[in-house]
Amino acid sequence: MAPSVSTATAAPFDQQPTHNGKITKIINGRLLQNHAIVEGTYLWFQDGKFIHPQSTFFDAQREPDEIIDAKGLLVVPGYVDIQINGAFGIDFSDSDGTPEKLAKDIQKVAKGLFQYGCTSFCPTVVSSFSETYNKVLPLLRPRPGSVQDGAEILGAHIEGPFISKEKKGAHKVETFRTAKRGMAEFDDCYGPELQNTHGTIRIITVAPELEGVRACIPELVKRNMTVSIGHSASKIAQAEEAIAGGATCITHLFNAMQAFHHRDPGIIGVLGSTHLPIPTPETKRHPSPSSSSPSPKNPDPRPFYGVICDGIHVHPNSVKIAYYSHPSGAILVTDAMSAMGLPSGNHSLGGLDVVVDDLNRVYIRGTDTLAGSAITMDACVKNFVKFTSCTIVEALEAATLHPAQLLGIADKKGTLNVGGDADFLFLSDDLSVQRVFVGGEEVRL
Amino acid sequence: MAPSVSTATAAPFDQQPTHNGKITKIINGRLLQNHAIVEGTYLWFQDGKFIHPQSTFFDAQREPDEIIDAKGLLVVPGYVDIQINGAFGIDFSDSDGTPEKLAKDIQKVAKGLFQYGCTSFCPTVVSSFSETYNKVLPLLRPRPGSVQDGAEILGAHIEGPFISKEKKGAHKVETFRTAKRGMAEFDDCYGPELQNTHGTIRIITVAPELEGVRACIPELVKRNMTVSIGHSASKIAQAEEAIAGGATCITHLFNAMQAFHHRDPGIIGVLGSTHLPIPTPETKRHPSPSSSSPSPKNPDPRPFYGVICDGIHVHPNSVKIAYYSHPSGAILVTDAMSAMGLPSGNHSLGGLDVVVDDLNRVYIRGTDTLAGSAITMDACVKNFVKFTSCTIVEALEAATLHPAQLLGIADKKGTLNVGGDADFLFLSDDLSVQRVFVGGEEVRL
Ligand SMILES: [Zn+2]
Ligand SMILES: [Zn+2]
Repeated sequence: MAPSVSTATAAPFDQQPTHNGKITKIINGRLLQNHAIVEGTYLWFQDGKFIHPQSTFFDAQREPDEIIDAKGLLVVPGYVDIQINGAFGIDFSDSDGTPEKLAKDIQKVAKGLFQYGCTSFCPTVVSSFSETYNKVLPLLRPRPGSVQDGAEILGAHIEGPFISKEKKGAHKVETFRTAKRGMAEFDDCYGPELQNTHGTIRIITVAPELEGVRACIPELVKRNMTVSIGHSASKIAQAEEAIAGGATCITHLFNAMQAFHHRDPGIIGVLGSTHLPIPTPETKRHPSPSSSSPSPKNPDPRPFYGVICDGIHVHPNSVKIAYYSHPSGAILVTDAMSAMGLPSGNHSLGGLDVVVDDLNRVYIRGTDTLAGSAITMDACVKNFVKFTSCTIVEALEAATLHPAQLLGIADKKGTLNVGGDADFLFLSDDLSVQRVFVGGEEVRL
Repeated sequence: MAPSVSTATAAPFDQQPTHNGKITKIINGRLLQNHAIVEGTYLWFQDGKFIHPQSTFFDAQREPDEIIDAKGLLVVPGYVDIQINGAFGIDFSDSDGTPEKLAKDIQKVAKGLFQYGCTSFCPTVVSSFSETYNKVLPLLRPRPGSVQDGAEILGAHIEGPFISKEKKGAHKVETFRTAKRGMAEFDDCYGPELQNTHGTIRIITVAPELEGVRACIPELVKRNMTVSIGHSASKIAQAEEAIAGGATCITHLFNAMQAFHHRDPGIIGVLGSTHLPIPTPETKRHPSPSSSSPSPKNPDPRPFYGVICDGIHVHPNSVKIAYYSHPSGAILVTDAMSAMGLPSGNHSLGGLDVVVDDLNRVYIRGTDTLAGSAITMDACVKNFVKFTSCTIVEALEAATLHPAQLLGIADKKGTLNVGGDADFLFLSDDLSVQRVFVGGEEVRL
C-alpha cells in the first residue's frame, strides 16, 4: 500500500492507442452476432469501439478510412479469461521484486495472451498473506487493453484465503482464515483495495460453509465484486444459500469441491437447482435463460460456472453433463499457472521444479503429480466443442459473452455489438487464432 | 426347477379376459400422443388392443359398442416399472413357501400395482443363491395383464449377484460371484431359465468391472436380455466398454455406484459420453435422439438409466442434472421393496423390523437407516416434474415410452398407438390416477 506503487502502475499507460477518428470496416467476415454466425454483413469500428454505420456516417456517405478483408474467416469477440494465475514463468501471486519489476511482468503476460485470442482477463491471486495483497493488488487495477500494454486487465480475481482446508488444492493452508469477525476479517486480509474504489477486485472466490462467510456475501456484492464459490466442502444447502445471498459463480466446477454424491450433490448440485429465487430481467450478472431454466423470460437463477477444459482437470464427459444441465452458465477458464506458454521441458517455477510435456501438461518433476493447468483459451474453446458436441457459437460464447455477463460488462466485452470495445479475433474454421485486434488495433502476433 | 412349478404358474391364466370383438371409444380425453397432449381426438380399442377407426370399421359405419367419457381428464399409457422388488409385505426374492403360495403372492402385488397406475412390470430378484432362482424365476415368466391377474409381468429383472462388493447396497455379499469362467458361471448361477426360451429374464443388472462380465454381455443380449450396469465401482472406460458391447441401461443411476469424481466420473459419466458408436435407426432399444445427442437422425448411443425419484435415494438436483444431460434416456423406477403399499407404522419384513413413516420412507426400526424405497410409480411421475421442471409429457414418457423402448416392446407398451395393448390411465391435471384400464378392461380401484 504505497503511492510509489501507483506511480509504477502508471507506467504502462504512457502510450495510449491513438484515437484519431479513423473508421475501419471489416469485409468478408463470418461474424458471431446475436447467437449466430452471420455472413454478408460488415463490422465497423472507430476510436476503439464498434460503431453503427447508419447513425454515424452512412447518411453523410462517409467512406471507411480502412477496409480489412477477413477472407471468409470467422470474426468473433476476443476471449475473456476470468481465472489465470500467470504465464510465461510469471506468477501474479509472486510479490518478490520491486513494483516496477512486477508491473513489467504483468505486462509481459498481458501481451503474451494475445496469441491465444485472450484480449481481457482477471489476473488471479491465490491464497496469500496480507503483505502480498497490499503489494500486488494495486498493480492489478483495471486498465484498458492495447497493443502496447497487452490484454485488458479487468481487475483481480482473488481466490482464497477464505476457503476450505479440505479442498485446498495447491493453496497454502497457513494463509487460510474464516470470517468469524465478519467483513472486518476480509478488510484485514486484503487491505484497502477491498474497498474497491478503483474496482481492483473483480472476483472473489470463497468457501460458503466457512464461519461468517455467507453473511458477508451481500456486502462483497455491494462493493461491486463478483462472488464465486469454490475450494469448498459445501453441501448443497449452503451453496444455495450463498447464491440466494448474491454469489453468481462457481469457481472451476468439479475441481476442489465435494464429489457429486447422490444424497447431497454439494456445489455441483447447484447446476440442478430448481427453487432459487428467479431474477428479474433487470437483474444483471445472471446467465440468460436456456432450455433448462425455470423461466424462459427471466435470467437463470443458477450461477455461472468456470470450467477448466484441458481434458485433465475435468473429465470430458463431466464437461458435457455440466454443459447440458446449464448451457448458458458455462465459462471457459484456463486457471493457468506460470508454466503456461513455456516450451516443453524442465522449468523452475516459484522454487518448484516442474516439467512441461508435449501435451502442455505440467508435472512436478520426477512425479506424476499435476502442478496446475497450462491450457490456453483458444485450446479451451476447441476442447469444449469436442467434449460437448456443442455448436461453435455456444463454445465461443462460453469464452466471450458469458464471462462478460458474469462481470456485468457485456455492453463492453464479449460481443461485437455497437458501443463495445473493438476487441476481436479472426479464426479459421478449426477455431485457430489467425489475427487479433484489441481496442481496434491489430496485434502483431 | 420342476414341472410342478410350471403347473403352479399356469394358475393365473385360468380366467382370460373375454375378447368378444366389442369396440370401445374414449371421448373427451386429452391424449398423450406423438409426444404431445392432444385434444379433440378419440381413442379406440377392441379385444385389448388400440385400433385405428378408419381401417377397421369406419368405412363400414360401425358404431362403437361402448363410449367412455373421460370428462377432460388426461388419457395416458399405463406405467411400466422395470425395477420393483415387491410390495404389500411381499418380496419377489423370497422363496419360502410353496410355488402355489408364491404365485398367489405375485398375483397380489400385480393387482395392487394398478392403483398406482402401473400396468406392467419387471419383478426384480436381488442377489440370491441358485436354489432361489430355480424356484422363483419360473413364476416370473411373462404373462399378460388382466383385471383378474393384475399388471402384466414382462419377465424378471435379475439384479446381481454379478455385482460389486464395494457397491453392494442391501444385497447379500455371500451370494456374489464373478464370471471368471464366462457364460458357464451365469448359467450355473441362474439355471435353465437363463436360456430364456420363455423370455423369463427381461433385464439383468451386472457390474461391468468384474472379471469376465464384459465379455459375456454380447451373449446375454443375444439371449434377448436387456443388460443394465449397476451396483458397480466401474470407471468410465469399463462402463463405456460395456455399453459398446450391448448394455443399454444403467440401474438406479447415482445409487450404488462411484460418486461423480472430476477425473473419472464412473458410470454417471456415461451421461456425458460423446464417442460411443452411434446406432443406426434400425437399432432397437436405444433412446431417441434429443438435443444432447450426437446425431439428430439416429438413436442416442448412450444407455437408458433408471432413477428412483423419491427425493431420498437421489437428490432432486441430481435428477435434474441427469435429465437435462440425457432427457430421452430417463426411466422412472420405484425400486420398491415389500414395504411399498403398507400403511405407516411398524412392520416385520423378511425378518427385518422396519417402520414406515408418513412420507412413505422406510427405516430400520430404531435407526435412521433407510431400508429401501417405498415410492409408487404415480408419485415418481409427480416428483419428476417437480424436480426437473420438465413438461408433463416428458415425465409421463419416462414412465411409459422410455421403459418400453428399453425392453424393445414400444409397439405393445408405453404408447396409445394403434396395435398396442390397451393399457391406459385417466389422470387428473395433478397427475393423480383416476381410472385404470388393462388390456381394454377397466380395473375397479
Ligand atoms: Zn483454484
Ligand atoms: Zn439395487
